[in-house]
Amino acid sequence: MTKDELCALYRGYIDCLNRQDWPSLGQFVHKDASHNGRSIGLSGYRAMLEKDFDDIPDLYFSIDMLAADPPVIASRLGFHCTPRATFLGLPVNGGKVSFAENVFYSFRDGKIWQVLSIIDKAAIEGQLSGMSDTGE
Amino acid sequence: MTKDELCALYRGYIDCLNRQDWPSLGQFVHKDASHNGRSIGLSGYRAMLEKDFDDIPDLYFSIDMLAADPPVIASRLGFHCTPRATFLGLPVNGGKVSFAENVFYSFRDGKIWQVLSIIDKAAIEGQLSGMSDTGE
Repeated sequence: MTKDELCALYRGYIDCLNRQDWPSLGQFVHKDASHNGRSIGLSGYRAMLEKDFDDIPDLYFSIDMLAADPPVIASRLGFHCTPRATFLGLPVNGGKVSFAENVFYSFRDGKIWQVLSIIDKAAIEGQLSGMSDTGE
Repeated sequence: MTKDELCALYRGYIDCLNRQDWPSLGQFVHKDASHNGRSIGLSGYRAMLEKDFDDIPDLYFSIDMLAADPPVIASRLGFHCTPRATFLGLPVNGGKVSFAENVFYSFRDGKIWQVLSIIDKAAIEGQLSGMSDTGE
């Protein structure tokens, strides 16, 4: 897979998520996919994403930066969204938060196989602290 | 800069950090460097790293994964270390913790210019919770 092909495939994956087009997810995600070291397979991957959208109805994935180095692509994703209740254990409760996620994806058979993701939890904590300051 | 040159330069930078060879840092870090959106310059960058080693005497940077796509390189770093006191606001207090950092580096003039880093704080929280459980 060339670098351009990898980028195009990855952008197709992100579009698929933003459309919540779950029947198409298998075009992008390997049946033996893992996420942060947990083997969850395609069905577990889909369940994880469906839960994300349940918890965060206005969830939208924006690509801020890419580093494509086949068979690996690293992506910095940006989010501006409104989790209903707790998120990463934090009491967001319908507040609007902005944060980034830095993720490495390793591909196999032309599909996302291993995902190593870190979400900027500290940034959300800082915003919640600011919200509560405002309320005082 | 080719992909191989970028990787070699980045590995030189990580070696420089692990040697705490601060006089050589300017070979790798741009004088106008920024870290997570803050313009800190080379001197601020060095001060940040020196403080990291003060806070974590056994700090050691290990490259777990790279995605080189000039002028950007993304790195997943792995740490196993013993922060003396608090770390990211967490009461580690001399406990041994393991965590990852996913970082994007944009290069300019052959040097690290913009750094966008996320440390896996949730992983450390999970380990501290385990330590306190063990103590109960």
